[in-house]
Amino acid sequence: MEPHPPLMVALPCPSTPAAKRPGPSFCRIVFVGLACLLTMPNRSLSASAPSVAVVPLPAEIQSAEGRLEITGKFAVAILGARDARLDAAVARALRRWEERTGLVFPRLPSGPYAISGDAKTAALTIEIGAASPQWPRLGEDESYTLDISAGRAVLKAATTVGAQRGLETLLQLLQSDAQGWFVPALSVRDHPRFPWRGLMIDVCRRWQPVEVIKRNLDGMALAKLNVFHFHLSEDQGFRIESKKYPRLQQYGSDGLYFTQDQIREILAYAADRGIRVVPEFDIPGHAQSWVVGYPELASAPGPYVIERNWGVFDPVLDPTKEETYQFLEGFLGEMAALFPDEYFHIGGDENNGVQWSANPRIQAFIKEHNLKDNEGLHAYFNRRVQAILAGHGKKLVGWDEILHPELPKSAAIQSWRGAEGLAAAARAGHPVLLSNGYYIDQLEPASVHYLNDPLPAGAPLSAEERKLVLGGEATMWAEWVSPETIDSRIWPRTAAIAERLWSPSEVADVPDLYRRLDYVSRRLSEAGLRHIAYREPMLLRYAGDRATPETLAALRELIALGKPILCYTRTQLSPRDPQYLALTTLADCMAPDPQPARVFVLAVEDVLLGHAAPATLEPSFASWRSLASRVKAVAQNAGPRAGELSALADQLAEAADCGAEIVARLASSSQGDQAAWYDALKPRLAKAEQPQGYAEIPMIASLRLLAAAAREQGQRGDLTPEAWRAHLQTVAFPKKNP
Amino acid sequence: MEPHPPLMVALPCPSTPAAKRPGPSFCRIVFVGLACLLTMPNRSLSASAPSVAVVPLPAEIQSAEGRLEITGKFAVAILGARDARLDAAVARALRRWEERTGLVFPRLPSGPYAISGDAKTAALTIEIGAASPQWPRLGEDESYTLDISAGRAVLKAATTVGAQRGLETLLQLLQSDAQGWFVPALSVRDHPRFPWRGLMIDVCRRWQPVEVIKRNLDGMALAKLNVFHFHLSEDQGFRIESKKYPRLQQYGSDGLYFTQDQIREILAYAADRGIRVVPEFDIPGHAQSWVVGYPELASAPGPYVIERNWGVFDPVLDPTKEETYQFLEGFLGEMAALFPDEYFHIGGDENNGVQWSANPRIQAFIKEHNLKDNEGLHAYFNRRVQAILAGHGKKLVGWDEILHPELPKSAAIQSWRGAEGLAAAARAGHPVLLSNGYYIDQLEPASVHYLNDPLPAGAPLSAEERKLVLGGEATMWAEWVSPETIDSRIWPRTAAIAERLWSPSEVADVPDLYRRLDYVSRRLSEAGLRHIAYREPMLLRYAGDRATPETLAALRELIALGKPILCYTRTQLSPRDPQYLALTTLADCMAPDPQPARVFVLAVEDVLLGHAAPATLEPSFASWRSLASRVKAVAQNAGPRAGELSALADQLAEAADCGAEIVARLASSSQGDQAAWYDALKPRLAKAEQPQGYAEIPMIASLRLLAAAAREQGQRGDLTPEAWRAHLQTVAFPKKNP
Repeated sequence: MEPHPPLMVALPCPSTPAAKRPGPSFCRIVFVGLACLLTMPNRSLSASAPSVAVVPLPAEIQSAEGRLEITGKFAVAILGARDARLDAAVARALRRWEERTGLVFPRLPSGPYAISGDAKTAALTIEIGAASPQWPRLGEDESYTLDISAGRAVLKAATTVGAQRGLETLLQLLQSDAQGWFVPALSVRDHPRFPWRGLMIDVCRRWQPVEVIKRNLDGMALAKLNVFHFHLSEDQGFRIESKKYPRLQQYGSDGLYFTQDQIREILAYAADRGIRVVPEFDIPGHAQSWVVGYPELASAPGPYVIERNWGVFDPVLDPTKEETYQFLEGFLGEMAALFPDEYFHIGGDENNGVQWSANPRIQAFIKEHNLKDNEGLHAYFNRRVQAILAGHGKKLVGWDEILHPELPKSAAIQSWRGAEGLAAAARAGHPVLLSNGYYIDQLEPASVHYLNDPLPAGAPLSAEERKLVLGGEATMWAEWVSPETIDSRIWPRTAAIAERLWSPSEVADVPDLYRRLDYVSRRLSEAGLRHIAYREPMLLRYAGDRATPETLAALRELIALGKPILCYTRTQLSPRDPQYLALTTLADCMAPDPQPARVFVLAVEDVLLGHAAPATLEPSFASWRSLASRVKAVAQNAGPRAGELSALADQLAEAADCGAEIVARLASSSQGDQAAWYDALKPRLAKAEQPQGYAEIPMIASLRLLAAAAREQGQRGDLTPEAWRAHLQTVAFPKKNP
Repeated sequence: MEPHPPLMVALPCPSTPAAKRPGPSFCRIVFVGLACLLTMPNRSLSASAPSVAVVPLPAEIQSAEGRLEITGKFAVAILGARDARLDAAVARALRRWEERTGLVFPRLPSGPYAISGDAKTAALTIEIGAASPQWPRLGEDESYTLDISAGRAVLKAATTVGAQRGLETLLQLLQSDAQGWFVPALSVRDHPRFPWRGLMIDVCRRWQPVEVIKRNLDGMALAKLNVFHFHLSEDQGFRIESKKYPRLQQYGSDGLYFTQDQIREILAYAADRGIRVVPEFDIPGHAQSWVVGYPELASAPGPYVIERNWGVFDPVLDPTKEETYQFLEGFLGEMAALFPDEYFHIGGDENNGVQWSANPRIQAFIKEHNLKDNEGLHAYFNRRVQAILAGHGKKLVGWDEILHPELPKSAAIQSWRGAEGLAAAARAGHPVLLSNGYYIDQLEPASVHYLNDPLPAGAPLSAEERKLVLGGEATMWAEWVSPETIDSRIWPRTAAIAERLWSPSEVADVPDLYRRLDYVSRRLSEAGLRHIAYREPMLLRYAGDRATPETLAALRELIALGKPILCYTRTQLSPRDPQYLALTTLADCMAPDPQPARVFVLAVEDVLLGHAAPATLEPSFASWRSLASRVKAVAQNAGPRAGELSALADQLAEAADCGAEIVARLASSSQGDQAAWYDALKPRLAKAEQPQGYAEIPMIASLRLLAAAAREQGQRGDLTPEAWRAHLQTVAFPKKNP
């Protein structure tokens, strides 16, 4: 499997248990995510202009009086270093507004938008210091200012890319009321907190075609992400054309790979949006698809086939043969010439060493060269690869495992393992990137990722070491996504990570994030992402031809309420599901961050802290029960889906019954044996949270907390809200075998 | 404007008025479409297996006892002339079933589906006579037989393409119940009625990128259409790369054109699906985009710009200069080499002659060459172009206007003008294609197109002339479609045209068509068409950020009830709306064939013929009134959309009030002055049918008919249902100035 971090990351959330490998239960993750939501100091809307729904939130934003009306006369002027890239960015921005408003903005007779150099007649003036270079670079100045008054908007930036970031902010500010379209008067001073803000997409385990990449680059630009990490080779697929070694794609891809022309198209598309592209070729492990066409590269005799399952596999390149380095010199040289970025990712994770240990010649090589063990051999391999890439002008990036005392300081470490690995690499003088905590493929709530800071206040790093923390990357591993579902697994949650990496560390109000995510989700949909569009067709297909309007209505509601189980759990439940399994289940229709569960968490919080009566939760239970009975009824005509729908409906009804019982217990002053009651309830809740069709009911974690409160009723004494909450969490989620 | 036929086509529907140019009112069109639905002899489900929802309906289909279970063991064998194209078609078919069912069908260890040559172990056996040629040809044998029993399915065809058509039938037969997935036992003998079954897409007026073309080719294959007519040049855009004359695309396309590599990709994609590609370069008129880069080709001095509006424009190639023919020899030769089909479309429509008449040199040329007039000059031009294309091995196709005594008999005529033009061309010995009546861009109901037969029973043609009727083509002109909406304007209605062109002429049961279209619509969505997926995102954007769940619910219902006005009317209402106007209005969210209106038409029919009491309509009016009040309420927070939503709500409420009043009048035996009452009602209905935001309430036509019945109450006497219906139609829709 790809580098998968421990699930329970060290969040800056006082009640979060320490990092721990996932057990068979997934409820704790939901709990962690939602619990963070509970423990935020401020649940009110953001103090900044409440009508502003920009993500990432700018560094400084000041409201002012008035508004800039947006009409068909909205004209743009560019002063300073006007370039084609900025013109194109302005055209895209205007087009998006035209599509929202139905307005037609001024055009030249020959067709293009009328962008002038005359600030006097323009509603939007953009002033640029200098044009950005053709290919975006790490550390470019992305800052901008945006001043909007009743008369005009003025966007200023030192560079093209800064102006592009400012344009995305402006785009998100458009609003309407009965008087028409407008942007509120305000003043923005903005710049990113980290210079490396990435999204990795694994196009290998499951193929993702050019259009998926392009629309996600549009989403990245909208969220001000600036690095597309292009994971191009894996055990399950080699996804790029090599002209020097064509058997790589011919034997290793099922015909599903990017031609070099398509790569150039993607590179240009990304650069146009101020996004760097860092290619990853994962070696020496995770390379099974390489050796299908070139078995002589492997550390054990072939033949090999493309891997169709998920996990960590044995095939690994042979680091003892000079032919391997000749091949890599040829191949990496070809790729280094294709990809303009100075960084080049060599993966390096999860080499299990099985083939090396089994090969006497390789073990002899280790001895001969005093490499100590397989790890030493891996470091030797990395030094050779680093030298090859340095020869092509590239700096190296790799996962935690490549960290080794002999690794040149220029090499960057991307940490999937966690804060400790990150700190160790920074202390060793390497630039570092955080991905632990940003594993969006896991389908955790946005809040979990949002509160995961690459550089938290208490990080044990010196000032110099802190400078080495370049940022982070969301990682979209692809075991459980198809081109149809991938957008819904990336967006809008990745915008929360984008905000963590762009906005000041103090911006951490989870409810306000969720409020703004609802808007940015629409903007992403308007930009072409399909996280909203994909759902209805997939639901129709899932529901089947016999579905009545009532069936569809019930399933729509169920899908809005439920959530997919975590990726790990899905793999654990179905370890042999192959690469080509169609992903069209109930769970694939569901969002990772269902709104009703978020609302319920807040309502429970109010009850736990005594801000609301337990009875306020009863309407929720009634609505679950009603939905459960409707789903149960329609399941009878749902053909092959009947079983899982019926089971999920039963669980929802049981959750409602448990909830009602807990509330009744909380509301009643005369109680029996609380512990016995609680122990009898727990297995019912455990049953209600069983996955069905890889879907689950996400409110169970809150019910567990509520049940703990019923059990501990009368025990609060003078505990503070925080201490009381911590106590309830310990009761609800006791640590096993500490 | 592109060749736009008279709207009121001569349908094989006894109550339809004769062909007539459209007036400002659009209700008659709706009426024609829905009236046909009323006048069908059989409103029950198809006599063929009622559970079968295949479109186009096969020539012969016989139900049998039993069913073939579809499980993960579903294996395929190909006997006879197995080729890569059939393998790919089988793989696509299996994949689509995997996506519906979640099953995983047998695969080889190397990845591809396990397709064997062993009939014994296969659940599906395909027997092929001979592999089809690489490029599909007119008149290929597309017949097949499909026999499904409890044990297996056997598909037999003389050719690859026949097997592909049969596979599409099989794909549509998949069903499910509580026992699992299955295909009912049955026996199909099938072949197309016409050999040329086309869809034309205009990629010029509004650009449509490669992915739009590809997914529509998938839709065509599903509906057994076999000709993609690729309309590649227009006043508003030149959409293909010429390497010989690059200024064509450089100056004429805004950068939006297909490279020759992309064209080759599309050609291969189409051929893989058994679809011919016939390119159209519309000359000598409709050529304004050509002369932006090459003004010397025009019949008046330039300079020219790309046209941004809709209509018929003056720029026309100069047929008097030899340089024009040298250019065409070069350009058409380049294109003839690129497109493999034997047919090549030269447009030829709507040359208004203005530049020719104004140019003394051109008029002198007409005299010198005894060409009589501009029309003679056009024929001269066509002869020259025909000679050029013949030199490149191509046969010519053109719109009605190219018909001329000197046109070689090999040239095919595509009739946009109507049955008379079609008959004239056939009588002159030309192969003919019908497009009149298949103008899907108009957004008429599917029933209108469905009942439009290229070769109706009474067609005034000899047996020899009838053989010249090759088929027809649906035409997707592009004034009012974007890549976002185009699928919803093509599908599922074009499947009705596909059935007209494929199935026997007797297959003409409109209600059964609509029943089956609902299923084929889902299959099309599963194949990647976006007519379902596009709606929710567009609605969200239209509704705006302030929309509440209640707003969205009301708008969803309104959008499901209303329909977009006809394309002509939209152009008439907004003649200056430019090419780049965003198409994101309420109307763009609506389907051309709303289901509630279809249901209402049938309910009204029952009342008109005395099969149901007038009061049975009252629940409809109540639901309209309820929806109107909800829309009215939410319109207040709909910002810039408030006006049109509020107006449409008012009209819907007025329609409900009128309906209730009519029903009351029908139900009451004591009546006052019927004529006066009717005259007072008419303007209210006229007001209620006014477009709002290019949308309309489609039930008004039925209300008019119902009002006529109230006016004529007691007058039926012994009129047959047909005669009574005809009488009411005359009352409801009197002809003006006959």
